[in-house]
Amino acid sequence: MAPFIRGVVPPVITPLTEDRQFDRVSFNRNVERMIEAGVDGLFFLGSSGEVAFSTDARRDEVVAAAVEQVAGRVPVLIGCIDTETERVIEHARRAEAAGADAIVVTAPFYALGGLQEIERHFRLIHEACPLPLFAYDIPVCVHVKLPGPLLVQLGVEGVLAGVKDSSGDDVSFRFLVADNEAAGHPLSLLTGHEVVVDGAYMSGADGSVPGLGNVDPHCYVRQWRAYQNGDWETVRKEQDHAARLMRIVTVTSGVTGYAAGIGAFKTAMQLLGVFDSNQMPNPVTALEGDNVEAIATVLRDTGLLK
Amino acid sequence: MAPFIRGVVPPVITPLTEDRQFDRVSFNRNVERMIEAGVDGLFFLGSSGEVAFSTDARRDEVVAAAVEQVAGRVPVLIGCIDTETERVIEHARRAEAAGADAIVVTAPFYALGGLQEIERHFRLIHEACPLPLFAYDIPVCVHVKLPGPLLVQLGVEGVLAGVKDSSGDDVSFRFLVADNEAAGHPLSLLTGHEVVVDGAYMSGADGSVPGLGNVDPHCYVRQWRAYQNGDWETVRKEQDHAARLMRIVTVTSGVTGYAAGIGAFKTAMQLLGVFDSNQMPNPVTALEGDNVEAIATVLRDTGLLK
Amino acid sequence: MAPFIRGVVPPVITPLTEDRQFDRVSFNRNVERMIEAGVDGLFFLGSSGEVAFSTDARRDEVVAAAVEQVAGRVPVLIGCIDTETERVIEHARRAEAAGADAIVVTAPFYALGGLQEIERHFRLIHEACPLPLFAYDIPVCVHVKLPGPLLVQLGVEGVLAGVKDSSGDDVSFRFLVADNEAAGHPLSLLTGHEVVVDGAYMSGADGSVPGLGNVDPHCYVRQWRAYQNGDWETVRKEQDHAARLMRIVTVTSGVTGYAAGIGAFKTAMQLLGVFDSNQMPNPVTALEGDNVEAIATVLRDTGLLK
Amino acid sequence: MAPFIRGVVPPVITPLTEDRQFDRVSFNRNVERMIEAGVDGLFFLGSSGEVAFSTDARRDEVVAAAVEQVAGRVPVLIGCIDTETERVIEHARRAEAAGADAIVVTAPFYALGGLQEIERHFRLIHEACPLPLFAYDIPVCVHVKLPGPLLVQLGVEGVLAGVKDSSGDDVSFRFLVADNEAAGHPLSLLTGHEVVVDGAYMSGADGSVPGLGNVDPHCYVRQWRAYQNGDWETVRKEQDHAARLMRIVTVTSGVTGYAAGIGAFKTAMQLLGVFDSNQMPNPVTALEGDNVEAIATVLRDTGLLK
Repeated sequence: MAPFIRGVVPPVITPLTEDRQFDRVSFNRNVERMIEAGVDGLFFLGSSGEVAFSTDARRDEVVAAAVEQVAGRVPVLIGCIDTETERVIEHARRAEAAGADAIVVTAPFYALGGLQEIERHFRLIHEACPLPLFAYDIPVCVHVKLPGPLLVQLGVEGVLAGVKDSSGDDVSFRFLVADNEAAGHPLSLLTGHEVVVDGAYMSGADGSVPGLGNVDPHCYVRQWRAYQNGDWETVRKEQDHAARLMRIVTVTSGVTGYAAGIGAFKTAMQLLGVFDSNQMPNPVTALEGDNVEAIATVLRDTGLLK
Repeated sequence: MAPFIRGVVPPVITPLTEDRQFDRVSFNRNVERMIEAGVDGLFFLGSSGEVAFSTDARRDEVVAAAVEQVAGRVPVLIGCIDTETERVIEHARRAEAAGADAIVVTAPFYALGGLQEIERHFRLIHEACPLPLFAYDIPVCVHVKLPGPLLVQLGVEGVLAGVKDSSGDDVSFRFLVADNEAAGHPLSLLTGHEVVVDGAYMSGADGSVPGLGNVDPHCYVRQWRAYQNGDWETVRKEQDHAARLMRIVTVTSGVTGYAAGIGAFKTAMQLLGVFDSNQMPNPVTALEGDNVEAIATVLRDTGLLK
Repeated sequence: MAPFIRGVVPPVITPLTEDRQFDRVSFNRNVERMIEAGVDGLFFLGSSGEVAFSTDARRDEVVAAAVEQVAGRVPVLIGCIDTETERVIEHARRAEAAGADAIVVTAPFYALGGLQEIERHFRLIHEACPLPLFAYDIPVCVHVKLPGPLLVQLGVEGVLAGVKDSSGDDVSFRFLVADNEAAGHPLSLLTGHEVVVDGAYMSGADGSVPGLGNVDPHCYVRQWRAYQNGDWETVRKEQDHAARLMRIVTVTSGVTGYAAGIGAFKTAMQLLGVFDSNQMPNPVTALEGDNVEAIATVLRDTGLLK
Repeated sequence: MAPFIRGVVPPVITPLTEDRQFDRVSFNRNVERMIEAGVDGLFFLGSSGEVAFSTDARRDEVVAAAVEQVAGRVPVLIGCIDTETERVIEHARRAEAAGADAIVVTAPFYALGGLQEIERHFRLIHEACPLPLFAYDIPVCVHVKLPGPLLVQLGVEGVLAGVKDSSGDDVSFRFLVADNEAAGHPLSLLTGHEVVVDGAYMSGADGSVPGLGNVDPHCYVRQWRAYQNGDWETVRKEQDHAARLMRIVTVTSGVTGYAAGIGAFKTAMQLLGVFDSNQMPNPVTALEGDNVEAIATVLRDTGLLK
């Protein structure tokens, strides 16, 4: 079996105008910059693509723009994130109709469930939508960890095409990689942890989904290519650079969670001239003042900003 | 200040047909039975009303049926439950347009946030929709506890009209009741814990939102009236009855979470002839076999079933 | 079966001198004050008795002082709190040798375990020490909730004599009371939640273990007697008083956890002249300055301090 | 600054006889086998060394045996694990008196605390005991994560000599390594995650503390030496071997937590002829039957057992 996708697949940040409309111009700039850097796919409407903050109309707008702008140059993955099965299926069908290449789906959330509900959730979505289906393992948002053996089983049966692992559980990820290999490699296994992609590559990951790849797509592409060439010193060196750059999410004060994380990414993108604004979706507010300056300092220290 | 609502406000279970369509006939039977029992309000599309499982079209269907069937006899509260602000506002506006009397909203979920995002969330929703706004404190679903002082402050400012407390934190609830009283009683404080409503009444609650009130509305109405009359022995006796009845959610085996909880409620409603089916929303499956029989035994032991 | 103990059993706060030695004089004053108030038992070396902070020598000192000072007037319960079985058994044997009337033991903690380890833990301790054994259900400290059916089973078999419930899970507590009753009432079921004892009495609790009973033992004794007489209005009134008094743990700033909770209790005891110092065990520091003044204000507002 | 220790420092499993006495003969065999394999230090009475299960007498027995058997060939680190400061200080002084080279201490646990208590805890222990002090970051046991900036600050001040990181938070670990480097490398940073040591080495770790190193010390020593030589392919290959071997903790059924984890390690050690028994400390029971056979299969598959 050949995995659906390999390499660097950044989760695309969604730029907003000052009045919180979708900023298509900044969006295009970002997409072009990442494709030119050599990414292997683009994942829209992920957690960092503010899917949870976006109305259905906004989601449609982003999907349409993504398909149009990417224009087949790399695969377009669409996050179909919602609480439970029927709501997800609606998003999946809209993504399919709009021309997406694959969809990305979390475990059900809000209501309490068990493993049988998670398994049935993925099976029902696969039945309802023929696109390649990625399981998005993100316990920090949905409060459950997807078990590796279930993922591999669903891969073997053709229900799942891959996994975006944002679990932070590197031990489970290594076991998942090994089990996937033993099963004939049905799943494309991508790590979402931009600060320790090198460790995931040591474990045998098929690629990465680094949110920080919006800020600096080049280092992740160079890292991937080094990994393909067995050049571990470069893998490590690029990771150290990315880790230094990731400090943009910790140098701020008075903010937490999404405001600190994606807030920093958007602020960096604005400082780099890719985004026109660092505006955030309601109820979050944009970083400002000293926090912006602290991020600029990190960008300068890492050579991204003169 | 007079609280918006006082008394028993059951969260209405949403009946489904075998093929998972909205079962309007069973829905009407349930609404009529609860109004005849003397409830003081009805809360549709709460967590137990399977809001998280319902598409927007299904939500519209339930809201329209609720407003039509209740026909002004008691206030209609509508759960506008979604991940973040803009998505909630859309639900709120649809509920308002359909004729709801009040809306019920949780803290934002999925994305990580802090207190300032929670506060801003409720303020923005209040600005966007003039209906009385209830905060729904349900950390088991949204993984954050709403702080009492913030709730009272938003009550004093007229942003919030009340709180549905499903936090399970009875200590905080007692402090909330006292703080609300000291502030002039701006909030209607309703407990969602059907097994310990007596304790909440001891704390001074303005009412209850018992999911189990779908199965037996009469005991909760009798309990409320006894509380109004200072007849604590009856308050306690009715609670003991309700607690015995609540065993329907623990006598099953092989199921957890929503499947066990709402699954048991629906099964009891079917056994009582109120619902035609105990069907559950995807990805959950209905209880069957021995689990149904175990629930029937509890209903017989508590005198609800002959 | 007659339960081992019923009524008010405060967990006794351990007073320290300024240089963190055991303050026997203050200790005696506190014990005498509570016995004179009419408590039904005293629980030494509980969580609020700083058992986790006390060396074995300090524990021995407290147990010896407790047995000597109480002198058989009420039962002496001793907390034998340690990580795993063998360590607990050592504490249990020392308590027994020193003349304790009962021991109180949590689930094992630190190492990860399951239900079978918890069950075996209590069985082994009971085999090693013939004193009546209370299970101390305190998930906030040991990160596991003791399941009611296991507790009742161990009660029926004579392994457990009672439960101190500090779980904050009032729903489970009500089920536990009912199951215990159905099994012939083998367990003495005491609630540790001083702010909602009225609710626990509504559920049928056999008594309370209120840390706040160190600060005001009289209200809890009056409440217990009212409960025995079916005078629910007094139960509620005394609870409202205790809840107002409990604000001593929330009016401080800059402190959390033990420093805020037991720190406030000790400070109140000093302000009331029962303790000579509000010193705390290492690594905690005593409250001071504005925090002391804020507590004094609560004491004045509730009539305890002139 | 030169870090106190670098390389492979296995946390030594404590063998028991069938009747749960300390098995000195098996202990010696294990120590000799690891020293011969070339480990750089040995850590006794860690979590996997069953410190939480061991009475003070047992701890003394293990420390004495450790110092005697190691006889200065490698540094002896002793886990001084207990709930709060004064209890830890007693263990620390006993370890010092017995000839330990360094002590390892967790954050305080059981009672609730905050950052200021954690900081004060380490400072007070350092004041009371002059041995090099390692912070043991193990949130799964003590339910708090030690913050990197605090650790580095305590390193710069000479309070801490190193960190054993068992947090599972590889992102924080990478930031910790970088901050430690920027501060002049005061801390010896050792990872406790035996399945992803390669990732920790990519991050720049000073060494590893692999529990699985009891079962196969050679692979971790080879891996460390490869890392020192920049031979990343060997680092990765040895890690893949260790990950396959680590399946001994997941192939069992009907057991969880310590029983599954250390139970599997002890069973493997018995199968390899290093331990005479796989007995576990109360309240845990030893693996048996099919579980033993499942572990033997893993040992055969990985070439450790013929």
